[in-house]
Amino acid sequence: MFQSCAAFLLHKPVAQPEHIRHKLAQTLIAFSDLGTKHAMDTEHSPSCESNANGNARLAVRRMRIDTYHENVAYMHRDCETYRAEGFKALSKVEVHANGHSILASLNVVDDAQFLSCNELGLSNAAFAQLGLQNGQLVTVSQADPPESIQALHRKLAGERLELNDFRAIIQDVADHHYSKIELTAFVVATNRDELDREEVYYLTQAMIEVGRRLDWHERVVVDKHCIGGIPGNRTSMLIVPIVAAHGMVCPKTSSRAITSPAGTADTMEVLANVELPFEKMADIVQTHRACLAWGGTAHLSPADDVLIAVERPLSLDSPAQMVASILSKKIAAGSTHLVLDIPIGPTAKVRSMPEAHRLKRLFEYVAGRLKLSLDVVISDGRQPIGYGIGPTLEARDVMRVLENDPLAPIDLRQKALRLAGRLIEFSPDVRGGDGFAIARDILDSGRALSKMNDIIQAQGARPFDHNNLDLGPLSLEVRADQAGVVCGIDNFQIARIAGFAGAPKVHQAGVDLAKKLGEEVQAGDLLYRVFAKFPADLQFARHAIDKSNGYSIGTAQEVPHAFVEF
Amino acid sequence: MFQSCAAFLLHKPVAQPEHIRHKLAQTLIAFSDLGTKHAMDTEHSPSCESNANGNARLAVRRMRIDTYHENVAYMHRDCETYRAEGFKALSKVEVHANGHSILASLNVVDDAQFLSCNELGLSNAAFAQLGLQNGQLVTVSQADPPESIQALHRKLAGERLELNDFRAIIQDVADHHYSKIELTAFVVATNRDELDREEVYYLTQAMIEVGRRLDWHERVVVDKHCIGGIPGNRTSMLIVPIVAAHGMVCPKTSSRAITSPAGTADTMEVLANVELPFEKMADIVQTHRACLAWGGTAHLSPADDVLIAVERPLSLDSPAQMVASILSKKIAAGSTHLVLDIPIGPTAKVRSMPEAHRLKRLFEYVAGRLKLSLDVVISDGRQPIGYGIGPTLEARDVMRVLENDPLAPIDLRQKALRLAGRLIEFSPDVRGGDGFAIARDILDSGRALSKMNDIIQAQGARPFDHNNLDLGPLSLEVRADQAGVVCGIDNFQIARIAGFAGAPKVHQAGVDLAKKLGEEVQAGDLLYRVFAKFPADLQFARHAIDKSNGYSIGTAQEVPHAFVEF
Repeated sequence: MFQSCAAFLLHKPVAQPEHIRHKLAQTLIAFSDLGTKHAMDTEHSPSCESNANGNARLAVRRMRIDTYHENVAYMHRDCETYRAEGFKALSKVEVHANGHSILASLNVVDDAQFLSCNELGLSNAAFAQLGLQNGQLVTVSQADPPESIQALHRKLAGERLELNDFRAIIQDVADHHYSKIELTAFVVATNRDELDREEVYYLTQAMIEVGRRLDWHERVVVDKHCIGGIPGNRTSMLIVPIVAAHGMVCPKTSSRAITSPAGTADTMEVLANVELPFEKMADIVQTHRACLAWGGTAHLSPADDVLIAVERPLSLDSPAQMVASILSKKIAAGSTHLVLDIPIGPTAKVRSMPEAHRLKRLFEYVAGRLKLSLDVVISDGRQPIGYGIGPTLEARDVMRVLENDPLAPIDLRQKALRLAGRLIEFSPDVRGGDGFAIARDILDSGRALSKMNDIIQAQGARPFDHNNLDLGPLSLEVRADQAGVVCGIDNFQIARIAGFAGAPKVHQAGVDLAKKLGEEVQAGDLLYRVFAKFPADLQFARHAIDKSNGYSIGTAQEVPHAFVEF
Repeated sequence: MFQSCAAFLLHKPVAQPEHIRHKLAQTLIAFSDLGTKHAMDTEHSPSCESNANGNARLAVRRMRIDTYHENVAYMHRDCETYRAEGFKALSKVEVHANGHSILASLNVVDDAQFLSCNELGLSNAAFAQLGLQNGQLVTVSQADPPESIQALHRKLAGERLELNDFRAIIQDVADHHYSKIELTAFVVATNRDELDREEVYYLTQAMIEVGRRLDWHERVVVDKHCIGGIPGNRTSMLIVPIVAAHGMVCPKTSSRAITSPAGTADTMEVLANVELPFEKMADIVQTHRACLAWGGTAHLSPADDVLIAVERPLSLDSPAQMVASILSKKIAAGSTHLVLDIPIGPTAKVRSMPEAHRLKRLFEYVAGRLKLSLDVVISDGRQPIGYGIGPTLEARDVMRVLENDPLAPIDLRQKALRLAGRLIEFSPDVRGGDGFAIARDILDSGRALSKMNDIIQAQGARPFDHNNLDLGPLSLEVRADQAGVVCGIDNFQIARIAGFAGAPKVHQAGVDLAKKLGEEVQAGDLLYRVFAKFPADLQFARHAIDKSNGYSIGTAQEVPHAFVEF
């Protein structure tokens, strides 16, 4: 059999202090995929004049440069010449102090005004992560490439990965050990049909394990989620008070909008404080059975937040990534029972029934492996839900439904009742089919409104009067240029227009629809109003509308049929 | 049919100067994939105090920060607050001056010591690209996301792309309009079997079109290329003088080593200057029929250089990318006839004959579409070629072959003659099968040496005496720990060891093999010597050897059979 030969070394290695040997070993790993290297061990550097004592420690300095999500370290070229040159090939360094370490990309500075030879500069975020004072000493070493890169290479080569591979990758992702190139490679290599359903389960499981997992000490914790893509779809703010009024535990943590004109957290923020410490959230849930908070502070599925940063610019939203992202967040948030809303329509994320069923089966398979009770509802996604799009306008619609206001959008009410009914049917004492009537009774009796007001007060109410709305002072109106029937409303374009107008960052901005699918219009009839706070924003929206206002006017026969019962 | 409705605007748009309208239109495109935006038009900014006159021009300043391959622009937060905030979401800006523009990532500075409110800082490379003096005025705008991103999205969705899609993508890649995320997505989405052979042709064609294309005004311009992976494989430096002595035109432009311990340009640089302006290269080719120059200055297939920057860290080297990269460079260099070497062996890039044949067919198909005459040679890649690995040691082997020195490595000589013979057979007056003998005659007669010396003198000779080599002063020896037959030499590990020792950057560093495959050894026999210039480098090599020295000692039966005639 093959045997490896031991190396007989002519020049015996000089005995090395343990920390140096360790450093060298690390560096060997660091170079393992490069084939070439530059020496970096300053103890051996012939040109490292500023560290004649062999001590490679540098005084840390906050550079007051905002480099967004990327840690950057700055080193002067003339001081640690040898070292800086050694780092150049890889450019990723590890900065150590007090047993902590962070990773950063290295920039080399040629100007002593910025940085002296004995200093290591750090960008704002990097400095904050290390938590030191200016002038404290740090050491710097070549950053190891993460070990899980081997598994990534196997996926790139088309191989199937095991649970432990995903665990290793996701741990490194969550620890910010992956470069943008590596993150993108992972996201693209797990796109489309690259993962089988077992691998999607592994990915989801790994994403759960890497973060915090909330425990509400309840047997049944319900939640509702929508895969997104439909403007105005604020059913959570109705469903949560309804099911809580029914006595179910529903501690809802939501995201802020990423690419849409409003997320549940943005809209709830119009009514109440949503940035709650976990302890306060737990108190509120204890008292009121529910909350409507922003999930950003809870450190749930942190790898998901890192991956989203590359998925978003690429508009990647593959079934595998959607399932892993949604289910990992829900399970980490402590949910045991979930109703999932998959809207379907010509401008929704899912555009055909077979596609919806494939996605449904994948969700069901992974949820089953994770022991999450899941009820998937395929819903009507042909147009926006309700009238308002943008935080303040959506909050108005929600409050109108809760108050049984005659102006309340009927589609929002109906959809919320349908989904709330499905959640209520998770109760062992509710017969299948009875949930809708129970939900309707809770809403019509004012118990849902009362519960919502309790939650708003508990989280910290904000001034809001939906009869005297605080909307952006600038507006424009879009009117029909011909008579006919509204036979198409483009979810994506309406969302873009609301986004250009300033939503969700500007709560008062957005789009208020006057006509919905199937309604008759005359030439000159109002289709929708756009609200904005800043002139430039209104201008952006106007230019988007000039390209396409999102409405199609035709005949009643041209209205697309609903794919699903409603 | 559906008809889009015109927008009736309540607030008529104020007439805008043309440049502002254009800017707004650009920005709309820029935000098109985001859904949300922040206003960025400083003319409308309520908080841009430092530009009360509405003039958005900033004084450019070289920041003297080396950010490697990434352009970075620096702006002070307090000055262009509104603008800086607007940019934050996208972080990619376009800096304009004198009709030129560059793209850069934006960093926001909070320290007036670094940068005043009226200044725009630029990293070294970005400053150089713009070619201005400190203090000259520039304007800054949101960078458009490249239009070809739509085509990238289609490829990510699994669609087949057309020639014009590849043209648009490759133009944007070459123009540095793609972010690292987008580059990686393209590289991974075109990895493995994602491209059909027609798409590989489109990609190659697009990569040719985007760069400079040399024209030697000759009917037949020959070249030879190897797909890489075999240390010591310096056949080009033998083939070029042989075929040039035969009268063929062979203007060889080579790369420096990227992941290997020496490229042809690195090794030739030991003997002669290789950084030649195109005019000088053309002069030399006119006079001597050949040159051996570095291709980096020629701007051939510039998109390839950009793509390699993300392919390398991911170790991606898919057939499609290999074919497009190699053939685009060769055709851009003006070659009409190419011999391509595909080495095959247990530690080569290609490890089985079916794999080699698949790759061969893909090369042949694309070359055919591009009207390039191609002869693919599958060669023995079981072990390094020759003895020396590293620029100086490889130059020694090459010169020994040219001088018919009895110490010349026979495998290097044989392989070079075989490939040169195939090139010579491109001549219409040479019978198939006669090329080898013609090449051997040219080599044995000293005409190849004479031609090589002409080329060296023409390019600018460097002092070199292969009987008195300038090798790194530090060395270590690796010896066999048991008797037996050398039955494996790991190409990859030997290349790594030479790389750790300092090759190719340190010309004098490398590995000098004493035993090759099939040779008998006794315990304690020398296997190879490692040369280095710096103690740290030798230490790196030593640690790599401790892990694995790359040699397997076994029995004669265990020597892998050659896959091909030799």
